[in-house]
Amino acid sequence: MQTEIITIGDEILIGQIVDTNSAFLGKELNKVGISIYQITSIQDEKSHILKALKEAEENADIIIITGGLGPTKDDITKHTLCEYFNDTLVEDKAVLKHVEFLFSNYIKTPISEINKQQALVPSRAKVLKNEFGTAPGMWIEKNGKVFVSLPGVPYEMKTLVSNAVIPKLLEQFKFPYIMHKTLLTYGLGESAIASRIEAFEDALPSFIKLAYLPSLGRVRLRLSAKGIDKVKVEAAMKIQVNLLLPQVKDIFVGFEEDNTIEVLIGARLTEMGKTLAIAESCTGGRIAQGFTANAGASKYFKGSIVSYATASKVDVLGVSEDVINKDSVVSKTVAEAMAKNVLTLFNTDYAISTTGNAGPAKGDSDAEVGTVWIAIATKTQVYSEIFNFSNQREKVIMKATNKAFEMLLKEISKK
Amino acid sequence: MQTEIITIGDEILIGQIVDTNSAFLGKELNKVGISIYQITSIQDEKSHILKALKEAEENADIIIITGGLGPTKDDITKHTLCEYFNDTLVEDKAVLKHVEFLFSNYIKTPISEINKQQALVPSRAKVLKNEFGTAPGMWIEKNGKVFVSLPGVPYEMKTLVSNAVIPKLLEQFKFPYIMHKTLLTYGLGESAIASRIEAFEDALPSFIKLAYLPSLGRVRLRLSAKGIDKVKVEAAMKIQVNLLLPQVKDIFVGFEEDNTIEVLIGARLTEMGKTLAIAESCTGGRIAQGFTANAGASKYFKGSIVSYATASKVDVLGVSEDVINKDSVVSKTVAEAMAKNVLTLFNTDYAISTTGNAGPAKGDSDAEVGTVWIAIATKTQVYSEIFNFSNQREKVIMKATNKAFEMLLKEISKK
Repeated sequence: MQTEIITIGDEILIGQIVDTNSAFLGKELNKVGISIYQITSIQDEKSHILKALKEAEENADIIIITGGLGPTKDDITKHTLCEYFNDTLVEDKAVLKHVEFLFSNYIKTPISEINKQQALVPSRAKVLKNEFGTAPGMWIEKNGKVFVSLPGVPYEMKTLVSNAVIPKLLEQFKFPYIMHKTLLTYGLGESAIASRIEAFEDALPSFIKLAYLPSLGRVRLRLSAKGIDKVKVEAAMKIQVNLLLPQVKDIFVGFEEDNTIEVLIGARLTEMGKTLAIAESCTGGRIAQGFTANAGASKYFKGSIVSYATASKVDVLGVSEDVINKDSVVSKTVAEAMAKNVLTLFNTDYAISTTGNAGPAKGDSDAEVGTVWIAIATKTQVYSEIFNFSNQREKVIMKATNKAFEMLLKEISKK
Repeated sequence: MQTEIITIGDEILIGQIVDTNSAFLGKELNKVGISIYQITSIQDEKSHILKALKEAEENADIIIITGGLGPTKDDITKHTLCEYFNDTLVEDKAVLKHVEFLFSNYIKTPISEINKQQALVPSRAKVLKNEFGTAPGMWIEKNGKVFVSLPGVPYEMKTLVSNAVIPKLLEQFKFPYIMHKTLLTYGLGESAIASRIEAFEDALPSFIKLAYLPSLGRVRLRLSAKGIDKVKVEAAMKIQVNLLLPQVKDIFVGFEEDNTIEVLIGARLTEMGKTLAIAESCTGGRIAQGFTANAGASKYFKGSIVSYATASKVDVLGVSEDVINKDSVVSKTVAEAMAKNVLTLFNTDYAISTTGNAGPAKGDSDAEVGTVWIAIATKTQVYSEIFNFSNQREKVIMKATNKAFEMLLKEISKK
């Protein structure tokens, strides 16, 4: 059983947007045993769409198509599906009612003829209701194969996949059991890890694969297993994880399930009933945003101060001006004062701070581009570390953010 | 002349990483006239790689392959290329020297046998030096077609593309001229815009395409033109832009070259010598992060307070507890007090604030999920607006962030 994703849209091919939909689909489908064979991104162009549909039908049993369902003329997926399946468009009354509802409740402009055309679907398609948008999902079967066409707007697509596509696929097909176990490691390069665990890797059973995913100061080791019998797959995975763990225990920080490190930290803080505040300089809101992107953040996250200008470290965070003048704004003392003061200000159990220079030019201190101090404060102590991450702005911000998460996770994991 | 991208790596197909490399390649190659016909993402699996190479060779003249060049056993691109081209691996002395240099300077662990194997390349490949990593780029020609294999690590790949791949392609081929002009609009939906500019769209010459890129409160209108004669293409584009602009002038905020609205706001504030502070609640750092992601933010951005917990609006931002109790934390008075107070606290010319409920559950107020107040303060006035964005968390956060940017751009553009 093969599954292929086709994403349609010139904006992907010219690099105007990054295709995050495919990653979501890959992850969610994997959870229920559906592995993606291929992702094909193509233009909003009829002959190309037809060719991709034909190739996908030859290679795959389930074809998931995203994009090209908007009301404007550049969106041609629906008409092209009609041509491919030799079908015609018919109005779906329920979709029309939903489009009218969305317009009267949220959009608040008069509904036009092209909006109403969102209710047209190929006659053989089963409609999947799109709660959050005007373009419905469409489910079309042909010779036992399934084609699902979904809007490209990420949150519309995501809801459709979780609420309609996956349940229907599970009803109709039987999938093998797939599991991944990813070990997050920090502090050693991939080839050094590979040398160390070579014997382990060579002895892996054929249905378990090991992959190395290096990025910005960390390496993720992913074990993937696939099989019919869930119990056996899980038992085999457990054995391998137990063999691997002792060999990497000095660099291992935790398992990454679905979860990002922010989610792991949030879950642990919530469980402990502890709270967090942040004082960010060079990371500019990136750390706070990492936490608040997830529902439930209000259970542990009280707030953050982005003290970007040096003056605001004094005025808002109450860092002593003398200390800044003496030690410079990128220093151990300033980082630690920021963490301590924000802990007090928000009255939390933990606080984290960053101060550094992300570049490209030197700022209010003499610190080299890439120099970042990160401090952690608790009610009883404060400590900090210095790093030199890179000379590339985006890399400095992201490495500092990742390192802050890593230090915080280590701190809250202390017994 | 067709160009195809093949990205290799299970991590893409299982959704463990988002493929940002393809977007970079699409954008950079477009700038020099190379349009991407298709992006194909496949597994680290020999028969699949061989099949994709064969299909790409049939469809395209230039094939760019990323990924699978690491030193570990899951990386098989190099061996598979050898099989495809019926070639063998030979050691490249310059690459070996570079690998040794990287180890002695940066990695500081002894070099191992698997690291040295990074210097093995197919005998017919021309090596492209990878400044920042051990895996070299490889350029292989066959019957006038070009295959380029690049590492998947983004910053290594990017440098290779800019410094080696694009110059070599331009030396060897003649490409048409491609240009895009993207108009950023705020405040009107795509179908309403489409109705308004229908006659314009229908009258576009065949070599200019219009695309609508809607996302969370804004629509980007992209005109793409392609032709042999750069001067003629540019002249034709200018005519169309001049026809389009007057029809959207009430919703047009600027051209997006490579720029986001945050960059446009930053440039205007810097030019005026004015400063900005932010008080964020439901947007949780997203607005601050939008500004600080860009170099030069310190010229106008003084800082932000993410007052996520209600108590922090009182303790840190100084909003009156009585007002919060009387009007609720999601209210006009609280939004305006947040903006005024953060303006004073950071001593800036402009301030923006958000308070709302992003969901999924109701928080410290009775406000419906999706309700957001956004306020703008200057030294002489404060005002606010209420919105109901959606009932989906990510959408609420992003729509509120975009609306805040829009309101701020309008405010600073007032004469």
